[in-house]
Amino acid sequence: METSEKLHNLRHSLAHLMAAAVIEMYPDTKATIGPVIEDGFYYDFEFKSPISDKDLPKIEKKMREILKTWKEFTHEEKTQKEALKYFENNEYKTELINEIENKDEKITFYTCGNFTDLCRGGHVENPSKEIKPDSFKLDRVAGAYWRGDEKNKMLTRIYGLAFETKEELENYLKLREEAEKRDHRKLGKDLGLFIFSDVIGKGLPLWTEKGTIIRRELERFIVDEEIKRGYKHVCTPDIAKIELYKKSGHYPYYKDSMYAPIKIDEEEFMLRPMACPHHFELYLNKPHSYKELPIRIAELAKLYRYEQSGELTGLMRVRSFCLADAHIICTGPKQAGEEVNSALDLIEYIANVFGLKMGQNYGYRLSLGDRTNSEKYYKNDKAWDEAEAILRQVLKERKASFVEAPAEAAFYGPKIDIQMKNIRGKEETAFTVQYDFVMPERFNLNYIDKEGNEKRTIVVHRSSIGAIERVMAFLIEHYAGAFPLWLSPVQAKVLPISTDKHLEFAGTVSKLLKDAGIRVELDESNESLGKKIRDAKMQKIPYLVVIGDKEKESNTMTVEGRNNEKLEGITPADFLAKLKKEIEDKK
Amino acid sequence: METSEKLHNLRHSLAHLMAAAVIEMYPDTKATIGPVIEDGFYYDFEFKSPISDKDLPKIEKKMREILKTWKEFTHEEKTQKEALKYFENNEYKTELINEIENKDEKITFYTCGNFTDLCRGGHVENPSKEIKPDSFKLDRVAGAYWRGDEKNKMLTRIYGLAFETKEELENYLKLREEAEKRDHRKLGKDLGLFIFSDVIGKGLPLWTEKGTIIRRELERFIVDEEIKRGYKHVCTPDIAKIELYKKSGHYPYYKDSMYAPIKIDEEEFMLRPMACPHHFELYLNKPHSYKELPIRIAELAKLYRYEQSGELTGLMRVRSFCLADAHIICTGPKQAGEEVNSALDLIEYIANVFGLKMGQNYGYRLSLGDRTNSEKYYKNDKAWDEAEAILRQVLKERKASFVEAPAEAAFYGPKIDIQMKNIRGKEETAFTVQYDFVMPERFNLNYIDKEGNEKRTIVVHRSSIGAIERVMAFLIEHYAGAFPLWLSPVQAKVLPISTDKHLEFAGTVSKLLKDAGIRVELDESNESLGKKIRDAKMQKIPYLVVIGDKEKESNTMTVEGRNNEKLEGITPADFLAKLKKEIEDKK
Repeated sequence: METSEKLHNLRHSLAHLMAAAVIEMYPDTKATIGPVIEDGFYYDFEFKSPISDKDLPKIEKKMREILKTWKEFTHEEKTQKEALKYFENNEYKTELINEIENKDEKITFYTCGNFTDLCRGGHVENPSKEIKPDSFKLDRVAGAYWRGDEKNKMLTRIYGLAFETKEELENYLKLREEAEKRDHRKLGKDLGLFIFSDVIGKGLPLWTEKGTIIRRELERFIVDEEIKRGYKHVCTPDIAKIELYKKSGHYPYYKDSMYAPIKIDEEEFMLRPMACPHHFELYLNKPHSYKELPIRIAELAKLYRYEQSGELTGLMRVRSFCLADAHIICTGPKQAGEEVNSALDLIEYIANVFGLKMGQNYGYRLSLGDRTNSEKYYKNDKAWDEAEAILRQVLKERKASFVEAPAEAAFYGPKIDIQMKNIRGKEETAFTVQYDFVMPERFNLNYIDKEGNEKRTIVVHRSSIGAIERVMAFLIEHYAGAFPLWLSPVQAKVLPISTDKHLEFAGTVSKLLKDAGIRVELDESNESLGKKIRDAKMQKIPYLVVIGDKEKESNTMTVEGRNNEKLEGITPADFLAKLKKEIEDKK
Repeated sequence: METSEKLHNLRHSLAHLMAAAVIEMYPDTKATIGPVIEDGFYYDFEFKSPISDKDLPKIEKKMREILKTWKEFTHEEKTQKEALKYFENNEYKTELINEIENKDEKITFYTCGNFTDLCRGGHVENPSKEIKPDSFKLDRVAGAYWRGDEKNKMLTRIYGLAFETKEELENYLKLREEAEKRDHRKLGKDLGLFIFSDVIGKGLPLWTEKGTIIRRELERFIVDEEIKRGYKHVCTPDIAKIELYKKSGHYPYYKDSMYAPIKIDEEEFMLRPMACPHHFELYLNKPHSYKELPIRIAELAKLYRYEQSGELTGLMRVRSFCLADAHIICTGPKQAGEEVNSALDLIEYIANVFGLKMGQNYGYRLSLGDRTNSEKYYKNDKAWDEAEAILRQVLKERKASFVEAPAEAAFYGPKIDIQMKNIRGKEETAFTVQYDFVMPERFNLNYIDKEGNEKRTIVVHRSSIGAIERVMAFLIEHYAGAFPLWLSPVQAKVLPISTDKHLEFAGTVSKLLKDAGIRVELDESNESLGKKIRDAKMQKIPYLVVIGDKEKESNTMTVEGRNNEKLEGITPADFLAKLKKEIEDKK
């Protein structure tokens, strides 16, 4: 989402305004830099004595006072000497001024009201007129190293939110509040789905029983569905000798995001960043006839990528993940096109199971190669042209709307990315289908054609459900933790009104459901029914089964659904049938 | 299996006899050493010019000739000088003589017929009378380094088989032939279940589609069964920081069999050799009440052990394997005893599914700690005594027969090993249930008791189905590749008699079975029915469905079972019902 120039100028002007307010209120503060960000702006300061979130309303008030007086931004060019003189007590601005001079650029100062700052420009013309005093809000205080380098001094960063109107600001705050409630890191903790541990290592989640149930349901679902569609699921090692990744070309391209080698007995092993060369080894084990192709080799493949620690975000970006991966070995471009199309069918089928709609929740992106960048893309213009034409054709024939993204391809060929919108409205690549004309050359992936001649194959790389970790993060947020029945770690909870009088029948009901394969919990605590219900609702359990006198006498139950559905006097057998149907329908 | 002294002496005498024959036939050969082994004996020689298996019958013949003349072994003691003089041209014997002298032992020479050797004794009294000329057989020639060290000279080893009678020898040969046919490495290749690849690395199997099907069935079976029995399946990372294994004590004890560390960003990560500390991290995530215990944390845990390359044997011993692992956290010794008992119930249940009987196919071994060896066993005599008493008690109450094995325990406590006999009659530890009083101390694994006090737990480590790789090796051999229906990669193959006339109905039948979840293959080749049947039988497919004119007309099928069962005129629906029942019964 590109920020419009108008909004950018508004936010930039507010950064100046905030600095003006801060300097006025805390005159011995050193201002450093203050850029625009996706929801507003920030400014980093060196304060004499620390400030906190509590101080923000005062600063905000001061900003609104000053805003009334700001009628115009004026600017003038300064020499290095003049500029340095102006900021003689500010070593940060001094550093910036010297850098600008070294790059032989102009040094400009912008002034509005009584406040002057070193600045490249880009403001509103008349702040007092153009900035609505209720369209911005100071958000929070955070620590930040000067220039993001931990060897430098720690500064105080003040974040501000800013939009064109009060309504936009309020909408944003509401959306953010909702997103925070749905944040998979928060829900993952509240619902007890996974943890991270410092003694295990960063970016390496440990899944609890409950989180593992959801994973297992997803994994079995995807494996069974892929097998139905003709995929051959295999199981290959998570490590291999470094030579394998040198041959595939992954090592030179992805070295920086791989874990370091394991050196032992004069060999080096790598945690695999990709499963493709492993699958190729299986393919190469015997010769293949054209009749066998396409061969769809699939695996829930554990992969390792050493992401920078600052990039790790809950389950969204981890250092070890399990990719629902496949490599489809095809007789040529035509078959590859057909397989790309089938892979998209599968992806749309899965997305549909999760209630995700094309256009609304996700869209297609055709990621192309940059012919001029031979460092990032394998050099073979003809093959690129052909491959890109095929992918474009597939999308057109599906009547899918898509955007084209230059220079977003893999190094071995173009791809179709399925871009999913997360709850923050941000796009992420969830799944991808790639066309590869490079690996078949590198690994000699051949087949015997009708005439008995050896021919080169084309490989389609694809993920169906993506990385289990990432899809889990996405689904936790998508469902706000209230998973559909088939995925719910606890599907029903049986609550006896009185532990003394109703526990026995509650136990019978619970056992009946459990024996039928339902994930059921029995609440044996001595709490009140109200408390029991509240606890279960916090856990977002789909069905609460209440057992009291009436139920015990009539051998029935009262069931409360998470969605306010209420079933009175239902027999255990009928309830079980209802659950089974709902699980089967993946509703 | 201990070899009786009589058999030992017989085999040892035959080693002398073989050396006598070799020296007589190839006088410039240097004899080195010739010990007794589990099925006979061998002798290592330095030949002037190489010999091969083709030469063995001649040597055998010569042995029988000489045997007639061998009436008595006599011996005499020699001084070092005399001994060295006798073997002055044999640097191997020279080395041995000097070693004996250095250890201050007696140097003895044994003579029978014209042949004299440096020897400690242990022969039959009268070879010509006591050794039956048809009870032994020279087996094969192999290369072997002097003293097993690859820096030394390569010698020629001749293996001989020897028993007390001809019948015993023949039985052994028959058994061995059967074992070779069942060898999981051979069957794994013939049935296309797994491969090894030099570019991936030694001891790291790649599972094909078919092998993966069996794995998946086993894995789902064990996970579902464990969950029914109250295990909480989790999912934890396969790597962790080295500090974790230092804390658990695995690093000091098992360092030599771990892959080397991955050093990155000033941290060191290890491929995990065990899952216990990972499960403890999950347990430690929150406090636990006595009401929650026992907590049974289970995982299909991928583990890595860097076995010496000479020890790697097909799937039996690999460098990466998936253990059906669990750690049961108990309130104390009593609960631990109960959990050990339940774990044995589970193990016996699973063994029974595979048709394995206690006593016949497997037996119990109680592995005890050596109190005096504090390097190998954690020092706490009282805890060892208590733990061993509990395990012994559990076995006694089960009325299980068991052997006790001193100094076979884990470093953290005693264990019960389930010893399985393989097709070669050799015992292997298949599953194990361990009692651990050390890890709870090291990791502070506590719980809150009824009175609100913090108490130390006891941990039971157990595997149910063991390592998937090892159990696969075992089952391939146990079933000789003819897996029961529920595990068979292809459950039925549909064979149209004529591709022209019967392919359509064969396709209909095949689709019906496939849609019902049966793993079915349709033979579309133009081969004769006989050839089609032979191919399918080679693959040990449980059911062959033959479709010809008669079947097409009557909408029925002729089914041939792998076990010679024949069903004529069965309807597709009836056949499907039969298959479903058999799969459900795991027959």
